[in-house]
Amino acid sequence: MEEQNAERTEINEFGEFELINRLTKQFPVKNASTVKGIGDDAAVLNYDGKKIIVTTDLLIEGIHFDLMYVPLKHLGYKAVTVNVSDICAMNAEAKQITVSFAVSNRFSVEALDELYSGILYACRKYGLDLIGGDTSTSTKGTFISVTAIGEADESKITYRSGAHANDLLCVTGDLGGAYLGLQILEREKRLYIEDQNIKPDLENQSYLLQRQLRPEARTDVIKLLGELEIVPTSMIDISDGLSSEILHLCTQSNVGCRLDESKIPISDEAQLMALKFNLDATTCALNGGEDYELLFTLKPADFEKVKNQPDITVIGFMTETEKGVKLISRNNHLYDLVAQGWNAVKGGN
Amino acid sequence: MEEQNAERTEINEFGEFELINRLTKQFPVKNASTVKGIGDDAAVLNYDGKKIIVTTDLLIEGIHFDLMYVPLKHLGYKAVTVNVSDICAMNAEAKQITVSFAVSNRFSVEALDELYSGILYACRKYGLDLIGGDTSTSTKGTFISVTAIGEADESKITYRSGAHANDLLCVTGDLGGAYLGLQILEREKRLYIEDQNIKPDLENQSYLLQRQLRPEARTDVIKLLGELEIVPTSMIDISDGLSSEILHLCTQSNVGCRLDESKIPISDEAQLMALKFNLDATTCALNGGEDYELLFTLKPADFEKVKNQPDITVIGFMTETEKGVKLISRNNHLYDLVAQGWNAVKGGN
Repeated sequence: MEEQNAERTEINEFGEFELINRLTKQFPVKNASTVKGIGDDAAVLNYDGKKIIVTTDLLIEGIHFDLMYVPLKHLGYKAVTVNVSDICAMNAEAKQITVSFAVSNRFSVEALDELYSGILYACRKYGLDLIGGDTSTSTKGTFISVTAIGEADESKITYRSGAHANDLLCVTGDLGGAYLGLQILEREKRLYIEDQNIKPDLENQSYLLQRQLRPEARTDVIKLLGELEIVPTSMIDISDGLSSEILHLCTQSNVGCRLDESKIPISDEAQLMALKFNLDATTCALNGGEDYELLFTLKPADFEKVKNQPDITVIGFMTETEKGVKLISRNNHLYDLVAQGWNAVKGGN
Repeated sequence: MEEQNAERTEINEFGEFELINRLTKQFPVKNASTVKGIGDDAAVLNYDGKKIIVTTDLLIEGIHFDLMYVPLKHLGYKAVTVNVSDICAMNAEAKQITVSFAVSNRFSVEALDELYSGILYACRKYGLDLIGGDTSTSTKGTFISVTAIGEADESKITYRSGAHANDLLCVTGDLGGAYLGLQILEREKRLYIEDQNIKPDLENQSYLLQRQLRPEARTDVIKLLGELEIVPTSMIDISDGLSSEILHLCTQSNVGCRLDESKIPISDEAQLMALKFNLDATTCALNGGEDYELLFTLKPADFEKVKNQPDITVIGFMTETEKGVKLISRNNHLYDLVAQGWNAVKGGN
């Protein structure tokens, strides 16, 4: 059961329960709220006095990931991260996950070990207990479905619907990097398909590749907001792109918005790579998605608390609904913010 | 938005959020424990003073269902049922579900409406709130991942691990029917593939077909146990077949078992159909699976309370571990109970 890269064990050599046991035995229960984890018909949790937060996300081969360039360990890590990010977006703390997956018979048991090593890494990083799941082969394609469960004090839970006119619009980290990392991977895949002797040229773009392959949930920012005694008025995580998420906050809070293009945080790496790909970096930030940063609104009085925080950038403010959801461009023109289609980055703005 | 069987709307004509809204708007929140359902990054639940039970199950095209003969409405209903059944097996009450699914682009929106009409039917039947999920297209194959969340008093939660020697082994309903229903459907599929002019001959076998296509979770039995003031010492639901589930109880409770073949409840419909297929009806019950009945153990003193309950049958008793896990056949021979392989009904015993 030690790492044996040379070995290959077919999934069919294991029974389902033997396989589950092999994959999950390294996950000890750590949270007091986990009464019973894996091994019965269902898990049992105990959250006396706290509210319970539940979210679920799917990752599907060919839609959300490409096994040609996504290492299974990263896939496992990312599948957990995107759910923890949703719990963060409620201003809550993730505590448990269930992991269900189906893979083709052509997968080896060692490949599943890789997947679970990424899940384990995420559980350690985010302090999660793995409490259940379901495992199957599939005749076609691989997918992972993760459900995360968390807790929060009622007074701290942050919905998408609480923003008011004049609230500040803030974002964590920087945007567009995950999308540009994907462009690098897709380019190298195309070149590799044309000529399999070509070595991938990842251009030492470890930052952008990591943004795509191994994003982090901003549990650190949730902790920071607690320390600063800030409860955002509304919050969402950036999975589909800044435009789409701003529109969600505006629709559900019934407010408008002014987003200042010049304030959108974009890393130097992303700026340079956008130039190379002849893309507009702002468009990558607005529509690229998968950055898993947090977008939230604050009462104006909280500005003093965040203005010197390097991980938080004020990028605009909310308005009355009638004023619309607008981008102020660098040259001071006003544009309507538009959500992009489902699973589509169409480019342009 | 009314039923329009003749219409066909491509999934791509809808945005993701428009599609989710169409599918989920008919699901009102009914449970007091559901603070916030669909529409934010995560759902918020409140279970002050109760323990929370969580389970998840996958249904995968080509493994768990065949769209050639499974109506989508039944698929939606069954995807919920199998999870509610797991919550029942903890002696708990299901309250919320999340539903994630991926379908190929070739599905129409009307087909998804069918799927959700089955989910809605199950939500009404079992008193569930739909609180979230994730929706995607897939390049290959259809699958559904459901997570169910429930509640129980701590004193009533029933694990697989609480059985003792001399406890009675009980089962609800009757067994083997779901497997025989599947045999009918598979036979008709083979005939249809050979000659598409042949009309399926389902032999008026509505009972067996319903056992396969639209199984019920035994929430009625959980209610009955409460009324009888019975807390089973251990419990599991029958998804993989009686043999496999008895072995789970024995392993996790560290006991042996004597199962009496003559006591295994098998419907007349299943007996007759087993004869037609030249199968042994007991083997169908032991290894067929998917009956979603409850298997549980009781303290001997509880016998008086269940002996006249038509939905509960005593089929054996637990023993010391050393005595093994045995079937007493009709002709009084002792056989070892053996679990069948993963996803396999190999026939014979």
